[in-house]
Amino acid sequence: MVYKYAKRMENMEASEIRELLKLTEKPEVISFAGGLPAPELFPIEEIREVNNYVLDHCGGQALQYSTTEGWQPLRKWIAERMNTQLGTSFCEDNIMITHGSQQALDLSGKVFLDEGDVVLCESPTYLAAISAFKAYGCEFVEIETDGEGMLPASLEKALEDYPRAKLLYIIPNFQNPTGRTWSLERRKKIAELSARYQVVVIEDNPYGELRYEGDFLPSVKSFDRSGSVVCTGTFSKIFCPGYRIGWIAGDAEVIRNYVLVKQGADLQCNTIAQIVISTYMEHYDIDAHISKIREVYRKRRDAAIDAINTCFPADTVYTRPEGGLFLWVEVKESVNTVRLLESCLARNVAFVPGYSFFPGKSRLPFSKRILPAWRRPANRAWSLRK
Amino acid sequence: MVYKYAKRMENMEASEIRELLKLTEKPEVISFAGGLPAPELFPIEEIREVNNYVLDHCGGQALQYSTTEGWQPLRKWIAERMNTQLGTSFCEDNIMITHGSQQALDLSGKVFLDEGDVVLCESPTYLAAISAFKAYGCEFVEIETDGEGMLPASLEKALEDYPRAKLLYIIPNFQNPTGRTWSLERRKKIAELSARYQVVVIEDNPYGELRYEGDFLPSVKSFDRSGSVVCTGTFSKIFCPGYRIGWIAGDAEVIRNYVLVKQGADLQCNTIAQIVISTYMEHYDIDAHISKIREVYRKRRDAAIDAINTCFPADTVYTRPEGGLFLWVEVKESVNTVRLLESCLARNVAFVPGYSFFPGKSRLPFSKRILPAWRRPANRAWSLRK
Repeated sequence: MVYKYAKRMENMEASEIRELLKLTEKPEVISFAGGLPAPELFPIEEIREVNNYVLDHCGGQALQYSTTEGWQPLRKWIAERMNTQLGTSFCEDNIMITHGSQQALDLSGKVFLDEGDVVLCESPTYLAAISAFKAYGCEFVEIETDGEGMLPASLEKALEDYPRAKLLYIIPNFQNPTGRTWSLERRKKIAELSARYQVVVIEDNPYGELRYEGDFLPSVKSFDRSGSVVCTGTFSKIFCPGYRIGWIAGDAEVIRNYVLVKQGADLQCNTIAQIVISTYMEHYDIDAHISKIREVYRKRRDAAIDAINTCFPADTVYTRPEGGLFLWVEVKESVNTVRLLESCLARNVAFVPGYSFFPGKSRLPFSKRILPAWRRPANRAWSLRK
Repeated sequence: MVYKYAKRMENMEASEIRELLKLTEKPEVISFAGGLPAPELFPIEEIREVNNYVLDHCGGQALQYSTTEGWQPLRKWIAERMNTQLGTSFCEDNIMITHGSQQALDLSGKVFLDEGDVVLCESPTYLAAISAFKAYGCEFVEIETDGEGMLPASLEKALEDYPRAKLLYIIPNFQNPTGRTWSLERRKKIAELSARYQVVVIEDNPYGELRYEGDFLPSVKSFDRSGSVVCTGTFSKIFCPGYRIGWIAGDAEVIRNYVLVKQGADLQCNTIAQIVISTYMEHYDIDAHISKIREVYRKRRDAAIDAINTCFPADTVYTRPEGGLFLWVEVKESVNTVRLLESCLARNVAFVPGYSFFPGKSRLPFSKRILPAWRRPANRAWSLRK
């Protein structure tokens, strides 16, 4: 049988990197590749109690089909939390529960992108967002980015140059892969530009609660008067990722379209997972839990930075993130980071070479392809084996 | 803000029927619209035990990220079960876990369908499969179908007439919406035709285990020598739907492509749901559980048929399914089933009018649009309010 796949499958071939990183699944490998939360911080005992409570009190309902929008009390909790933490003004009708925030990205592609449309993104940007959007046949245009976020002039030029720009994808807090955080000024500016050019912003915020120092900043959405900003969120980093519960938040009209698309894609999210998380949030102190997580991750970030200072060449350039799970190291142009990864893997250490994070490859000077991303997995102390 | 949605959103407007059926969510409505399994049959106590066991023994792993393919022991169990029940010869590499079998349908569209491709399907066919495939811009061609399955001559003619036929979507056991089951001969024939015309068959089998009388039949896949048949399955009807765990099974090459697509779509399924189901299958007797379900549903089917015989007009034509959750009633051509639904809703009774199940609308004589589907929800005794 010769299978006739869809054209989109040509964009989805397994990459060299993905193949190399399969090796990181071996238990002896110390992996800085994926941003896995620390499992010793999962509230297992509390989840056990809540699970039993839910099964005892509404087991039939928790194991049954439910609505595509998601469990109403959970949507309400998310809206209120976002309003408090991020300065938004959402209610439950602005929230749809998704299968992790990855599905929120995929459905964003499905709702907005036609073949040939353009996604504007930070340079570099999150690998799995590239995979999600790519399935809809879009092109990527990378916007020049510094330590405070996208450069407004570069963004504005791209908005002028690319009339098919449909989405502007950003991670303003502790970005994956760089660890960088946008300044207040840039947040305001992007809300203004997106409204003026009528382009939808996908504000991805998986790490926002994991701030180890400095002040929390309002979301880009909080400056949005036109409805152009759509937000994603997830319980993966503050609770646990195994449940695959995230969300998309935006104007009610937009959310209704996400609901239509999700209905065809998978009907709904796991019912009991939604009720368990909602019940946990009601009965336990999530802020105390997040404080505990922050404390542990802050120490690990410091240990990673100490190790870079101690063990890496003296002229190594790296980011010092104020939160989140990732930092970014630049090595000398003469170092090929794919070969470096191979050497590391031979010593059971893994990381992701930086070039994977640049989707608009042609826009990158070839000589700069060797930027590596050192992603710090939170469940391991930083360690190098020489 | 004027949102510029993707073109596919034009196919996805909320239908008149969907709006009407929203009314069925009111608790006082007796709904024959959705095929909800009976919650009193969910093994809640056993699930409670297994959940606690899993959290005690591997809580960190169960709440962590895991692989896109799915939990290996569960994939192995599914392969073995299919081999025993359906005459296939799968191993774990042939199985990917999906977010319910609905996601298996959606990903099938994503893997195979380009805009303008053709999906061949039974006439009528499953509503949510239409929604899933439609998102990829395909057209539907309905194949004439009788009590034994698709008519081979009609299928062959369509395969000749539509060179862009990419998928052939079928539900050979207790089809939704008609309740019909394909004969052995037709199963063999479709495997042969799909191989000859190199078209991929999606063999959807959510109800196969729910047989109340007659003999189990081998799957279409069991007659497939070319690798053209891909199977879907689900735990929703034999265990519970709230976990949203289903699967796709096919040649290893095809499954690798589904894995690439699922990675971008949502990374993976819920980890703990997979481990709980896998542990349940290992420690409890699923066959005994299914026997219990069958007994209850068989009685409810009989009650539904008795009620039709007693309360419906004497010349009512209906199917008598040997299993599954649905039966199909034809009313006189003079009855408009949308108006009938409105009258029923006024008395707090719901069903789905038949025309929704014919995706290739132009191929249906307009005078026949009034076929209604009486779907029997398993969690209610049949009841009419006059």
